[in-house]
Amino acid sequence: MALPALQPVEPTARDAAIAVLKQRFGERCSTAQAVRDQHGKDESWHQPAPPDAVVFARSTDEVSEIVKVCAAHKVPVVPFGTGTSLEGHVAALRGGVCIDLSQMNRVVRVSAEDLDCTVEAGVTRKALNEHLRDTGLFFPIDPGADASLGGMAATRASGTNAVRYGTMRENVLSLTVVLPDGRVIKTARRSRKSAAGYDLTRLFVGSEGTLGVITEVTLRLYGIPATISSAMCFFPSVKAAVDTVIQTIQSGIPVARMELCDELQMKAFNLYAKLGVPEKPTLWLEFHGTEAGVAEQASMVQAIASEHGADGFQWTSSPEERKRMWQARHDAAYAGKKLQPGKQLWATDVCVPIARLADCIVETQADVKASFLLAPIVGHVGDGNFHLTIILDPNDPKELAEAHRLNDRLVARALSMDGTCTGEHGVGYGKIDFLTAEHGGDALSVMRAIKKSIDPDGIMNPGKILRM
Amino acid sequence: MALPALQPVEPTARDAAIAVLKQRFGERCSTAQAVRDQHGKDESWHQPAPPDAVVFARSTDEVSEIVKVCAAHKVPVVPFGTGTSLEGHVAALRGGVCIDLSQMNRVVRVSAEDLDCTVEAGVTRKALNEHLRDTGLFFPIDPGADASLGGMAATRASGTNAVRYGTMRENVLSLTVVLPDGRVIKTARRSRKSAAGYDLTRLFVGSEGTLGVITEVTLRLYGIPATISSAMCFFPSVKAAVDTVIQTIQSGIPVARMELCDELQMKAFNLYAKLGVPEKPTLWLEFHGTEAGVAEQASMVQAIASEHGADGFQWTSSPEERKRMWQARHDAAYAGKKLQPGKQLWATDVCVPIARLADCIVETQADVKASFLLAPIVGHVGDGNFHLTIILDPNDPKELAEAHRLNDRLVARALSMDGTCTGEHGVGYGKIDFLTAEHGGDALSVMRAIKKSIDPDGIMNPGKILRM
Repeated sequence: MALPALQPVEPTARDAAIAVLKQRFGERCSTAQAVRDQHGKDESWHQPAPPDAVVFARSTDEVSEIVKVCAAHKVPVVPFGTGTSLEGHVAALRGGVCIDLSQMNRVVRVSAEDLDCTVEAGVTRKALNEHLRDTGLFFPIDPGADASLGGMAATRASGTNAVRYGTMRENVLSLTVVLPDGRVIKTARRSRKSAAGYDLTRLFVGSEGTLGVITEVTLRLYGIPATISSAMCFFPSVKAAVDTVIQTIQSGIPVARMELCDELQMKAFNLYAKLGVPEKPTLWLEFHGTEAGVAEQASMVQAIASEHGADGFQWTSSPEERKRMWQARHDAAYAGKKLQPGKQLWATDVCVPIARLADCIVETQADVKASFLLAPIVGHVGDGNFHLTIILDPNDPKELAEAHRLNDRLVARALSMDGTCTGEHGVGYGKIDFLTAEHGGDALSVMRAIKKSIDPDGIMNPGKILRM
Repeated sequence: MALPALQPVEPTARDAAIAVLKQRFGERCSTAQAVRDQHGKDESWHQPAPPDAVVFARSTDEVSEIVKVCAAHKVPVVPFGTGTSLEGHVAALRGGVCIDLSQMNRVVRVSAEDLDCTVEAGVTRKALNEHLRDTGLFFPIDPGADASLGGMAATRASGTNAVRYGTMRENVLSLTVVLPDGRVIKTARRSRKSAAGYDLTRLFVGSEGTLGVITEVTLRLYGIPATISSAMCFFPSVKAAVDTVIQTIQSGIPVARMELCDELQMKAFNLYAKLGVPEKPTLWLEFHGTEAGVAEQASMVQAIASEHGADGFQWTSSPEERKRMWQARHDAAYAGKKLQPGKQLWATDVCVPIARLADCIVETQADVKASFLLAPIVGHVGDGNFHLTIILDPNDPKELAEAHRLNDRLVARALSMDGTCTGEHGVGYGKIDFLTAEHGGDALSVMRAIKKSIDPDGIMNPGKILRM
């Protein structure tokens, strides 16, 4: 996406703030071009915008200090985790100061008894699960990238396990947040539920750094299931695969993962990882539970799939094989690049009510087949959520226009089915133009009122989610 | 609780607004004393405060009209469902207009394919489940009373099934809300997840009518499990029962209901419903799933319970017996009144992290045993949530002071364990004084900023949740 025209930060104020930050943080406040460039860009094709300085924070107190300096000078603040967002979330559209949280990487506490933990914002999902290795617990939310948990909270991330375990919305118990004036709040206590006032936790989950900087995250954990079994199965058509999904969800089978890859994505896997799999629409399944429970679930889903013409069930309970299989699935975007080396990916996502999913995917695939661009589909289809990964050269105006057309039509299709313009990638500045169509002007005005009430000077990640 | 001193509504404005509403709604705008009295009181002991008029709305458009009239005259608005709240939520502390939503009782749509439905705010949970009878679906959230679904959303209600199915927080997909200026918004689309902007749904869930009037609710539904089995089992001590709960939750057994009643509450059931049960600490259990799954879960929990000295397991899969058992449980408050007829109940609730639950309940029971008041304990203990039902004559200053002391100590105990002052009853005006201790002044200031940004004139249910 081309950069929106926003008023750049006022240079005198900017320089004054950076001078104070350099004084205070020394080398941890960088204005080196390479550092700035790296922090203005995420994993998307959207045009990057470097901040004027990057400060590497090591504690909530330091983040508070940095934000206070920026607030005093009305200089924009952009929080940065791992930079793996997909809608231009970290682009410093007005310049300003990027706060890099990657050095806030301590696991603060784990309570195996309460099935929860608290981590600093920079801990990644894989680092957390590595830390939990000997506890018998795990944290299930797994976007494709090894994102930071602060970033995952900020973007309301989800992933392959959401159909069973929910998204960050359901799995964040509490947040520590530095407000736009530098004050520090906790959004909630650690109890599993509460009816004590407005749900600040859910307000900050998904706020994309526009209301404050998330510095600590308290998360639900889960016991590693006694039995885990994974499978791939191959379908004669995308519709057959998706109808299997719909029927499974409607039957209430508590499947842990239920992922779709279309024939083009399967081809990409063969190119990328030499998976040697049939290039047919494929469901990737996983079941969690007791041995008897997993066997029962698996046989129920296999029966539904067989009715829809599935074949080639390949089951595995081996941890190594499962790991390899799901790593391949998580590498879908990297694999996609192999279809047309040198081009870029525009990974877009929508989510619709489950009964409309087959229609939405089939129509989208028809759109893609009629286009001169390639665009594989993968999806967390158990949630009604799927991704279209458009492969393009963004410098070719014809390709760019066609990609926009496909994306616009995808979003319009999802909205017409009472779905959302993004199930998990978030808004950033890439999807900001779809929010009026999705929510209506009056609901957006409520979001704007909230933004103004918490961030009256508009310094927090300006130009994201809402045009103010 | 005695009424807080709030500025009453300005009489000229009030009379002008009521005149307009009478003109428009005729007999559906009532100023009869009996109607006003009924609408200023909930099921709690808190002192009631009647509104100046009650308007019985029949549509979202009518609610919008009523709110616009009130907004034009800056007259308070109090939404009213079934009046079964427990912290004085419906008391019209500044007078004004109560909007009774009980005539908005249509089930708007049911999508069995999407496992969701939309209802008007006045539909009660039992009416919805009656409507769903032939679909094979049900809605699990069940506070004790047959509350309206609008009221349940507004108070973030939960109940006995929350340990398995979540609370209203997890089960509301979208709301239609009339804002304090009369505009109407939808808070979200129907997809299971979304990352498109601030989570307005979760902001209005639990906002207790202080940010707008909920007029329609879109809810997740669930397939009725193939097998349901319920049981009661009896323990030598409350600690033994709660330790069974903790171990069950930590083992990840997906129990559907796990309720505690202490020995005093069991005595109350015998007095009220002649249950003929042992007057010992008791767990009420329910398992949902396939036949094999339920049998497996039940045997695992029975083994844990037996380790903790449980006996007298009474299992039933008969729908009639289960219904009788859970109706008895839902009547806990009415049963409590039998312990000291003529007195009133102060039903308070807290929620703590699960590992602290035994300590919290044991200490609370010790407090009660040392008191001259009776106060049975019941709890949705699988969530860490429990209720203390203090039996008192609120007109006796000594009893009232003692009840306050017990309640204050209970809340302080829960907060010291990183829990919340209310797991499901909400704040109303009864718990408003605990919010600073729970959230801290800075987090409360964020809530106040949100309140002011959405309801700048402070007309929506004034004096609830936040002191402004």
